[in-house]
Amino acid sequence: MPPASVARLPVYLRVLDDLAASGVRGASSAELADLAGVGPAQLRKDLSHLGSHGTRGVGYDVVRLRDLVGAALGVGERSALAIVGVGNLGRALARSAGFASRGFVVSALLDADPAVVGTVVGGVAVDDVADLGRVVAARGVSIAVVATPAAAAQGVCDAVVAAGVREILSFAPCALQVPPGVVLRSVDLASELQILAFHARARAARAARPATGATGPGRGGVPGP
Amino acid sequence: MPPASVARLPVYLRVLDDLAASGVRGASSAELADLAGVGPAQLRKDLSHLGSHGTRGVGYDVVRLRDLVGAALGVGERSALAIVGVGNLGRALARSAGFASRGFVVSALLDADPAVVGTVVGGVAVDDVADLGRVVAARGVSIAVVATPAAAAQGVCDAVVAAGVREILSFAPCALQVPPGVVLRSVDLASELQILAFHARARAARAARPATGATGPGRGGVPGP
Repeated sequence: MPPASVARLPVYLRVLDDLAASGVRGASSAELADLAGVGPAQLRKDLSHLGSHGTRGVGYDVVRLRDLVGAALGVGERSALAIVGVGNLGRALARSAGFASRGFVVSALLDADPAVVGTVVGGVAVDDVADLGRVVAARGVSIAVVATPAAAAQGVCDAVVAAGVREILSFAPCALQVPPGVVLRSVDLASELQILAFHARARAARAARPATGATGPGRGGVPGP
Repeated sequence: MPPASVARLPVYLRVLDDLAASGVRGASSAELADLAGVGPAQLRKDLSHLGSHGTRGVGYDVVRLRDLVGAALGVGERSALAIVGVGNLGRALARSAGFASRGFVVSALLDADPAVVGTVVGGVAVDDVADLGRVVAARGVSIAVVATPAAAAQGVCDAVVAAGVREILSFAPCALQVPPGVVLRSVDLASELQILAFHARARAARAARPATGATGPGRGGVPGP
């Protein structure tokens, strides 16, 4: 399944969860695509990778499709996370109730700061990042979350890969290199804000530049009666 | 400029910042594209929207292009943020040093919980979300960050739009509706983990299923001397 299709599955799952909760039993690909914010052809192609093709003229069975997408994403199963970097963000992630409700259990916290190692956050004791390999193996960690400052991120990423972890979520505001076969997803919060700032600036520039012909004399609205 | 091109600008900026810091003066579109993880044609097209076309056989002037991309993203300018929802994540964002260094100043914190309103986080006093309109206007907020639980997110989003904010970053694990002209970007951390879990499961399934012909008798490696 293409990675871009995989990345849309959580969106479909959210849409299907909402529909099922509202008691909707069937939905066309056009309806689902509209709710998910993608094109209908794209949605049909993505779902065909899961072996689901809907029924012509009827569409998809909402509950059945939800269960299929959920199973593909491992809903109902348990994944052990290690969070490396127990600063403000790492702490917030460790305390997040939303992860556990979706099957993601924070099994390990690791930090390099002796003042932080040994403290307990969200019920989990912080281990020394020097013990990463041992901790990952002992607790069956399958996903590592890198929440360190930029300067430490590549070293942590290398250590995580050396420990055998193949799935990494990085919040570090820098590009990370991983060997082939390792899946790295990056969330850069400052980049998200920069993208919004671009749109805000473009909007301000449009507002400052009068639209051609719209404000000239003699075009100022409908003549009075 | 197409939104997808805008969304790649922070990646280009990061690459160009790194190159400039390393003293690299020129780079071809192929080199830049490789570092950014996109195709060279895509990169050239994205940059052409900024009026930058490079020089045939020479490529791009790294510092000049960095300054151009940075200016488009408002680097060096100041944007005022309001964070709505001062739970674990909102608190972590409010204390993030990385935002301020990129020009994003947390100007307002808002929450609905009377126990949280009036407390100070990262040097900013938390206001009552009921005062959102007044606070946004008084502090010139241009970007709102929604860090509330899912159940509150749509109401907060509506209130933020009613207050005149047109750029929104949401961390709520649910789809939000905004009127045309409002730019909404969503970061759903649990979805990121689900995508990684999918890849982990696919990897485990591949490992459990022997590759055709690779393990059969008589193909077990090179014959001895």
